Amino acid sequence: MKYSVSCTLGYEVAEETVCLFNLQPSQFDRQVLLGENLDLSGGREIDRFTVSESGNRIFKVLAPSGKLLLKYRADVDLDPLLEDPATIKAVEPIDLPLDVLPHLNPSRFCQSDRLKAFANREFGQIERGHGSVTAICNWIHDTLEYLPGSSHGTTSAVDTIIDHAGVCRDFAHLGITMCRAMDIPARYVSSYAFRLDPPDFHAVFEAYLGGRWYLFDATRKAALDGLIRIGLGRDAAEVSFSSFFGKVEPAEMEVAITSPGRGTEVDLTTKAVSLSER
Amino acid sequence: MKYSVSCTLGYEVAEETVCLFNLQPSQFDRQVLLGENLDLSGGREIDRFTVSESGNRIFKVLAPSGKLLLKYRADVDLDPLLEDPATIKAVEPIDLPLDVLPHLNPSRFCQSDRLKAFANREFGQIERGHGSVTAICNWIHDTLEYLPGSSHGTTSAVDTIIDHAGVCRDFAHLGITMCRAMDIPARYVSSYAFRLDPPDFHAVFEAYLGGRWYLFDATRKAALDGLIRIGLGRDAAEVSFSSFFGKVEPAEMEVAITSPGRGTEVDLTTKAVSLSER
Amino acid sequence: MKYSVSCTLGYEVAEETVCLFNLQPSQFDRQVLLGENLDLSGGREIDRFTVSESGNRIFKVLAPSGKLLLKYRADVDLDPLLEDPATIKAVEPIDLPLDVLPHLNPSRFCQSDRLKAFANREFGQIERGHGSVTAICNWIHDTLEYLPGSSHGTTSAVDTIIDHAGVCRDFAHLGITMCRAMDIPARYVSSYAFRLDPPDFHAVFEAYLGGRWYLFDATRKAALDGLIRIGLGRDAAEVSFSSFFGKVEPAEMEVAITSPGRGTEVDLTTKAVSLSER
Amino acid sequence: MKYSVSCTLGYEVAEETVCLFNLQPSQFDRQVLLGENLDLSGGREIDRFTVSESGNRIFKVLAPSGKLLLKYRADVDLDPLLEDPATIKAVEPIDLPLDVLPHLNPSRFCQSDRLKAFANREFGQIERGHGSVTAICNWIHDTLEYLPGSSHGTTSAVDTIIDHAGVCRDFAHLGITMCRAMDIPARYVSSYAFRLDPPDFHAVFEAYLGGRWYLFDATRKAALDGLIRIGLGRDAAEVSFSSFFGKVEPAEMEVAITSPGRGTEVDLTTKAVSLSER
Repeated sequence: MKYSVSCTLGYEVAEETVCLFNLQPSQFDRQVLLGENLDLSGGREIDRFTVSESGNRIFKVLAPSGKLLLKYRADVDLDPLLEDPATIKAVEPIDLPLDVLPHLNPSRFCQSDRLKAFANREFGQIERGHGSVTAICNWIHDTLEYLPGSSHGTTSAVDTIIDHAGVCRDFAHLGITMCRAMDIPARYVSSYAFRLDPPDFHAVFEAYLGGRWYLFDATRKAALDGLIRIGLGRDAAEVSFSSFFGKVEPAEMEVAITSPGRGTEVDLTTKAVSLSER
Repeated sequence: MKYSVSCTLGYEVAEETVCLFNLQPSQFDRQVLLGENLDLSGGREIDRFTVSESGNRIFKVLAPSGKLLLKYRADVDLDPLLEDPATIKAVEPIDLPLDVLPHLNPSRFCQSDRLKAFANREFGQIERGHGSVTAICNWIHDTLEYLPGSSHGTTSAVDTIIDHAGVCRDFAHLGITMCRAMDIPARYVSSYAFRLDPPDFHAVFEAYLGGRWYLFDATRKAALDGLIRIGLGRDAAEVSFSSFFGKVEPAEMEVAITSPGRGTEVDLTTKAVSLSER
Repeated sequence: MKYSVSCTLGYEVAEETVCLFNLQPSQFDRQVLLGENLDLSGGREIDRFTVSESGNRIFKVLAPSGKLLLKYRADVDLDPLLEDPATIKAVEPIDLPLDVLPHLNPSRFCQSDRLKAFANREFGQIERGHGSVTAICNWIHDTLEYLPGSSHGTTSAVDTIIDHAGVCRDFAHLGITMCRAMDIPARYVSSYAFRLDPPDFHAVFEAYLGGRWYLFDATRKAALDGLIRIGLGRDAAEVSFSSFFGKVEPAEMEVAITSPGRGTEVDLTTKAVSLSER
Repeated sequence: MKYSVSCTLGYEVAEETVCLFNLQPSQFDRQVLLGENLDLSGGREIDRFTVSESGNRIFKVLAPSGKLLLKYRADVDLDPLLEDPATIKAVEPIDLPLDVLPHLNPSRFCQSDRLKAFANREFGQIERGHGSVTAICNWIHDTLEYLPGSSHGTTSAVDTIIDHAGVCRDFAHLGITMCRAMDIPARYVSSYAFRLDPPDFHAVFEAYLGGRWYLFDATRKAALDGLIRIGLGRDAAEVSFSSFFGKVEPAEMEVAITSPGRGTEVDLTTKAVSLSER
């Protein structure tokens, strides 16, 4: 399925600043980049690279003081794998691949080490697999209020449980945390999300099950088979659409995703969605 | 109903230390002290007073370095009020008495200010009254594991939610916190608890409903109509059976409560228990 | 010295709400109320009381939905005690009066139980007394940035240490916390503050030393001998100029204090200031 | 300089458990492994691998229920680079290599995002470089008490600041956190440490300065030029000498390091020590 994604980001830059942008869809077999374009005004691209560990693609920009405006667009062909959730079991620890193991560790916003008793008491009776991660997502959806402005950049999964509210980033962090607490590897995903309303970047998570990474979205706000993956990482500390080494204020932001050819919907309550094995 | 309570507390005192003990049943119309006796060895009683605000009764002891041994016993006549829970509604804010208002405030271990959204989302659909506090207690009982050693002196209600485990102190703090978050005044109660197994001091809480304070115990470990009240306060920061201004290590502790005349049991699932109006 | 204080507070009330206001100077021997006046529009005063424990004076107001406007003014004669700081020692625990003891306990925003090692390591070498509390205030002043907007209603002393920033409320909480961690009773004070710029309500704290409560202000923003005391309590959880049982948005606020007769200044670096023994 | 390192680790295994051990010195140009030996009883080695990102070397062991005993020894030739600290400046953000960037992010135990104001206020006046990281270490050394038992597995840098106490792990986490808050990349290092008393595994940290990683030890307990590096990672969440997927209790532990040929000491107060560029 073909998608067009785009974003416009404007900033007020107070002093010359190095900026890192991660807005570009990553490249892998089920997500093929057909073309892309970056327009910059008020800054100069000084590097463009791909992080080997994650595949995240980065623009490095040097922005003088003044207004920085960035317009990016890309065309992508997405071919998500759809499978029967009932057949997808958790991988036993002895069989977890080496490069998947770090996604069992607690991280800045996902303190899974503190939530082992919590997770076991809430989800320990369910067989570990796609169904138990779905149970985690259902619990998150029922527990949290989706409330823009209810969290901020330092909010962690532990805070979110107490707040009982959050945005997509917080829903994803809590899902990752509960999975890891159940010895299921999980990682954070930033994306363009088809039919997300209002349009914005979207955060979801992936859990490692049955030898692949499967997508989950506890917010239930976007179609899992219409997610164009941008960044991967342990949590939002590693996945940010923009990072600055200087004083910068956001001024405008617009995100869009379209798919003219997309027609009838898949019933995703009966399908598990995966984009990659690694 | 008559009860005999007693405790033996032993300490190793490293240097001359001022000690405050609050082991004595408090005195009020429904709990009448028939007699009491304190034996001290290795220390000297220097004062004995009653805190006017709470009615808590305090022994002030000066202990030289060495072994301090304290044996206390008392006989008490207890006459709890038993009522139909269905008739007990929350008091509207406009009608709350002046001296009850402070028990709506957050306190050291009961951060009700952070849990308003949580409480409203979990319990907001239930009519505020004895039934909604019972719902809070049921939720605590189902959520937390009662696990000796799982918490310590600085553990607060927010920690307990994350830990999903605690002891009677933590169960009480969480109950108090949820009540206050729902605008129901609540306070911490230390006690001798009939049929608590193993015997120990016990912490429960009281909520202010229908013009009186009603007892609740989310641990379900003791009979609410057999609680001999020792101390009252906002939370455990104000109610401690012992406080020391110096280096003191606990060495032994034994608590007992008996009631020879006590016979057939009241079905407390159908009765609300109250000890006092103030 | 005579002072005139006043405030205007406006609110948008979404639904009928019970409001408690604590804007009135409290009454005691060194602070005599000469006269006061309250104008209310959009609400009805339903009670006026004084909390016995603290002396805090409360207006209870019932406000229908709509605009609530409150104008209060008072004339006060203030006679602070000024003493030589070098002569003021901490009170030994054995000599602390009964009603002072609760101010050693940790409270919602002042987790002194967690900061005993911290306080001892930072301030343990200084003889406990007016000088050690001044050392605490100097440390707070040097450590924290005074930054409006850097904290919010749930910010506690532990947070403030990490944030290294705060407003008068946070400076007072941190001072109280360190005092209690050093076994010096301390309490929170709200006030009208002469020469505070810009004019606003001001929070400071009192420490119990040498048999009296002495004022301290780690912000160094107001003259300690020109503070008209409004409310006392363990911390801001107990002292609030307004509390609402309903949905209310603040719309306007203006605070003023004048003293036409006030002339030459006392050098407060050489004087300790106290308003009361109890 | 040649070193021999060894450790003996014993466990009680309650049920068949997958174990990961990271006890082996890592291999790189300045640290050459001359030989090593692993003896296992009560378990079976099922894999041995090196993590590509970190170079950490892992033994994967399957242990049946019962006693697991592991004896490891290795001979290593270590050639640390010694340089003049005064010449080592921080790398400007624009010049940081791609694979170093993740070490600027906050992590589970190093919440550098919350400590930017703190770090800037305490260390912002010092030119960023080897000297400013040494200033951070001096501050940690002066602030914290080294106190075995004062922290536990979930203790983070924010907790350590409040506790004012910790062990090597906590000292390293706080150093890493302050460096990252100052935009200096930093990472966690586990090691065998020459002359550490009592002998044990030791945690220190590395900061990225002047194009290399430099070692720092805020505990001042071991000679920086005698550290045999075992594991690297963002913090202790990624670097653990043992991890278990099952119920395992530690039973014994012994760690040793010797260097027969090592003679006169380098004055490390005048030398910066680095083991690697990457």
